[in-house]
Amino acid sequence: MKKDIKTLRDKLLTITRLGSAVALLGWDEEVNLPKKAHTYRGEVQAQLAADLHKKMTDRSFIKLVEDLNKAEVFDALTSGDQVIVREVLRDIERAKKIPEELVKESAELTSQAFGAWAEARQKSTFSIFEPYLKKIVKLNQREAEYIGYTESPYDALLDAFEPGLTARKVEDLFVPLTSELKKLIQQAAQQKIPTIPKATYDRVAQKKLNEAIAAKLGYDFEAGRLDVSPHPFTIDFHPTDVRITTRYSEEDFWEALGSTIHETGHALYQQGLPLDGFGTPLSEPVSLGIHESQSRIWENFVGKSRSFVEYLYPLLIDYFGKQTIQYSSEELYAWLNRVQPNLIRVESDEVTYNMHILLRFEIEKSLIEGDINAKDVPDLWNAKVKEYLGINVSNDALGALQDIHWSHGTLGYFPTYTLGNIYSAQLYNSISKAIPNLSEQFTKGNFKPFLAWLRKEIHRYGRTYQPEELIKHATGELVSSKHLLAHLESKINKGE
Amino acid sequence: MKKDIKTLRDKLLTITRLGSAVALLGWDEEVNLPKKAHTYRGEVQAQLAADLHKKMTDRSFIKLVEDLNKAEVFDALTSGDQVIVREVLRDIERAKKIPEELVKESAELTSQAFGAWAEARQKSTFSIFEPYLKKIVKLNQREAEYIGYTESPYDALLDAFEPGLTARKVEDLFVPLTSELKKLIQQAAQQKIPTIPKATYDRVAQKKLNEAIAAKLGYDFEAGRLDVSPHPFTIDFHPTDVRITTRYSEEDFWEALGSTIHETGHALYQQGLPLDGFGTPLSEPVSLGIHESQSRIWENFVGKSRSFVEYLYPLLIDYFGKQTIQYSSEELYAWLNRVQPNLIRVESDEVTYNMHILLRFEIEKSLIEGDINAKDVPDLWNAKVKEYLGINVSNDALGALQDIHWSHGTLGYFPTYTLGNIYSAQLYNSISKAIPNLSEQFTKGNFKPFLAWLRKEIHRYGRTYQPEELIKHATGELVSSKHLLAHLESKINKGE
Repeated sequence: MKKDIKTLRDKLLTITRLGSAVALLGWDEEVNLPKKAHTYRGEVQAQLAADLHKKMTDRSFIKLVEDLNKAEVFDALTSGDQVIVREVLRDIERAKKIPEELVKESAELTSQAFGAWAEARQKSTFSIFEPYLKKIVKLNQREAEYIGYTESPYDALLDAFEPGLTARKVEDLFVPLTSELKKLIQQAAQQKIPTIPKATYDRVAQKKLNEAIAAKLGYDFEAGRLDVSPHPFTIDFHPTDVRITTRYSEEDFWEALGSTIHETGHALYQQGLPLDGFGTPLSEPVSLGIHESQSRIWENFVGKSRSFVEYLYPLLIDYFGKQTIQYSSEELYAWLNRVQPNLIRVESDEVTYNMHILLRFEIEKSLIEGDINAKDVPDLWNAKVKEYLGINVSNDALGALQDIHWSHGTLGYFPTYTLGNIYSAQLYNSISKAIPNLSEQFTKGNFKPFLAWLRKEIHRYGRTYQPEELIKHATGELVSSKHLLAHLESKINKGE
Repeated sequence: MKKDIKTLRDKLLTITRLGSAVALLGWDEEVNLPKKAHTYRGEVQAQLAADLHKKMTDRSFIKLVEDLNKAEVFDALTSGDQVIVREVLRDIERAKKIPEELVKESAELTSQAFGAWAEARQKSTFSIFEPYLKKIVKLNQREAEYIGYTESPYDALLDAFEPGLTARKVEDLFVPLTSELKKLIQQAAQQKIPTIPKATYDRVAQKKLNEAIAAKLGYDFEAGRLDVSPHPFTIDFHPTDVRITTRYSEEDFWEALGSTIHETGHALYQQGLPLDGFGTPLSEPVSLGIHESQSRIWENFVGKSRSFVEYLYPLLIDYFGKQTIQYSSEELYAWLNRVQPNLIRVESDEVTYNMHILLRFEIEKSLIEGDINAKDVPDLWNAKVKEYLGINVSNDALGALQDIHWSHGTLGYFPTYTLGNIYSAQLYNSISKAIPNLSEQFTKGNFKPFLAWLRKEIHRYGRTYQPEELIKHATGELVSSKHLLAHLESKINKGE
């Protein structure tokens, strides 16, 4: 049995290492790839991804895990090894249920769908993408049937991104939250929208500032690096090699810095995963929602806090000069926290962002449950934007075509964004109780106790607990949106 | 049969793609890798390299090639397919002769030897490295016995880097050349060594200049990129993705630019390999000597020519400013072409460089033939440096420990450097006959006809011809060192 566990760990490590090579090909594609090299890179990636899939679905590998899961064997395992067997089996069983032809069909469809979506968005014409979305919905419905579910087929999709999540749970969390948010948005509409004077921020200075802040938050540059890519992302190869990217705007330093703080949050999670379980679920992030909570807690609860802005303000003067920073710390704080409905999800503020997710969730669920068809999406989208945000969608590019997710064949992903916001608020509430002088520490640029709490309560556990259990374990409460609501209310009502 | 050739091409492509992933791991290690990530990167590389080796020595793959090599099948192949079968078989047969335990022993030894060499060099104490060199020589002797040879066991090693090369051929080329070079070095010692005033060259300006020059020479930045690494190198994944690196010195712009021109020469070869034979020997470089000829012809025959310096000079003023360039074009030309014995091979001029190779060749050959032992190397080295270059080796770090090659287990590589010089001079002689106004073109910054000649006579052939045949085919002459000698003589005697 000890030998079998050793064999399993070795096989997992082999899979993980090959996965790291695939990940490097992807990182390099985003960050470095010469223009003409995309075709060949695609071939190399496809080949290695196929090798990886083969290793993961290898019969002897599956049998090994299944044998270790037999009650008499499983019960004698250490608790860590039980986690490994349980989680690897979870991955395998999901993969096993989906027939190869569906995987292949899906790969073929989405490679075409991406092109169609890009063209549709560019021309702002939903009808170009519609037939692909129709097929994507059908494939996802078939997938849900293969996976199985109790209540809604949408549950089977959610579970891939957030173990244990169901449409009902999303509704229980989102409905009370968003009905309160609607009121907040109306309140905010009565207030004056803060502005700051226009300025030009030097790119080289921005890069240095971004690196300094990431390092200050705890990101280890000896185990990572900061590069530039069109869409900021975090990629991990190993806790000793977790890389982040950003993109610079000369008009708005927060575009890069806000995104760097967000990605630093993701990266701190990956750098904090345990080294000795590497290659196994003990050293893997547990879910997209928990991952997003780590980026959001740093972006929104640290980065946009009054105390952080106080810490940041003199640095802005150091890096960009007094002539550039023609506004006060308080004006900057108000500007960073302005609430203003925006048609684009990724450009939205903390409050309205969740309404974007609500409407996507409702549309996806209706699509998968067969209540609506792909062709109904734009009208429904626009009506919901009007209802939730009070603004008119002027064209599909700014509406139902704005996100890449569906073109990748992905449905069920969006709710993890708001879940991340909910988790982050709940975690922050617990941290601020555990560390009473948090704001003072942030003002002084001391983020170590804050990170230490996340390391201790979240990062070190890998996939030991399911997401809900992990939040319960860390905060002593069931998952609830009340902390997020309280946080947003105090921002709007008390300017905090 | 057509099916078999198709299968072979597909298998080769699979091997090449995996090789590209391994190459990317290596490039990233040199250019990007965070400090703490080296251990894990080593694991990933070892795993993928083992997979690659398995694919290359797969029985069904070998049988496929051997079946295609049967006379009745082979004769019916197209000439291109014959090249593929011939060259793949050449690679396989060499690999087959070496037993796996020797490969393993060698991998284990050299991973230790590298550390010992680094320590020995750092402490300038040859005795730390000596026991490893002794074992490396023994392994190379065993390898030579497995490979087989007619005259000297050293021939079996040379052939790995330069197909068809033998110790006798090296002697026939090197002995007359170097005896003349000794005289030239003595002559040069009588002349005043040119200098230029000290200056500080801005790094950002240097990077821009290096990119501009590489592009001007014909390097396609849409199929490559220029980065920084401790030791400049060229790496290829595909003709659409060939990357070069350099390193900048603020005191000497030529350190980066000279090396960029050198690496650009390597890269132009790789970017010029035929796309449609990709994955097969039709799209692979033929030998190290030919590869080096491509870097040297650009570095020495273009980059250090009077006409190129005339083209470069106004650019230096543009990029660095008049205050920095406190010397004339003629002074710069003389400085770039100064001849002055140097203990370090990689810092040597065009003339004395070849003496460094001669002494390494003689020592390696004696080691492999068993005439001397590892412990004899430093004294012999120092005596030869005194004899060939007229200077004293002050310590082993500046002597027998300066090069990394032996620590990698590699013997028989060095001669390809001088071979590259010899080939480059012979090629240049032919080009200058084919294109009579070459100097005028260089002065105007027109390098297109020059590159076109190399593309037509060298690059497009891949491994179609053996190196000697390729030179004969391109120049109409057998390989000879007379052109290199004439070139160096005219530089020293006539200042040309």
